Amino acid sequence: MPTIVVDVMPKAELLDPQGKAVSGALTRLGVAGFSDVRIGKRFELTVDQADDATLDAARRIADEILSNSVIEDVVNIEVVE
Amino acid sequence: MPTIVVDVMPKAELLDPQGKAVSGALTRLGVAGFSDVRIGKRFELTVDQADDATLDAARRIADEILSNSVIEDVVNIEVVE
Repeated sequence: MPTIVVDVMPKAELLDPQGKAVSGALTRLGVAGFSDVRIGKRFELTVDQADDATLDAARRIADEILSNSVIEDVVNIEVVE
Repeated sequence: MPTIVVDVMPKAELLDPQGKAVSGALTRLGVAGFSDVRIGKRFELTVDQADDATLDAARRIADEILSNSVIEDVVNIEVVE
C-alpha cells in the first residue's frame, strides 16, 4: 500500500531547544562543519490509494491535525510508493 | 548554506503508540482511507559545505547520535540546498 510522507518543522523564527542541545553535543564531540540542527516530525501515512482526493485529505490532515500552525510549518508532503 | 536532512523512524516491527493515537483520531474524525500512521523524527543539519566528507560525517552522526539503533532506523539522508 502506498505511503504519504508529511514533514513538519518548527517555524524558522522559533528557538529550537532540542536542536540547540544536539548542536551543542556535536560541538563537544568535536564534530566540525555542522553549524545548526533543527528537529521536526516525520509522519508516514499508509493509504489505500494515493489518488488526488487522498492527497488533498492528507494536506488538510497535515494542516489541521498533524501540525500546530502557530509554531510549526508543514514543509513537505509526498507520495512514497 | 546547504542543509542535510536526516529522517529517523521507529523500527517497523515496534508498536508506535503515538502513531496509533493519531490513526485513531483520524478514524473518529471520519477521515477514511488512512489505514496506519507512524511518527518519526526529521533532522535538518545546516552545514558549511555538502561535500563527501560532511555527508560521511552526517551518516555517522545519524547512526550514533541522532538515532537509537535498538528501536529506530535511519531511513533517509539527503542534501537539500
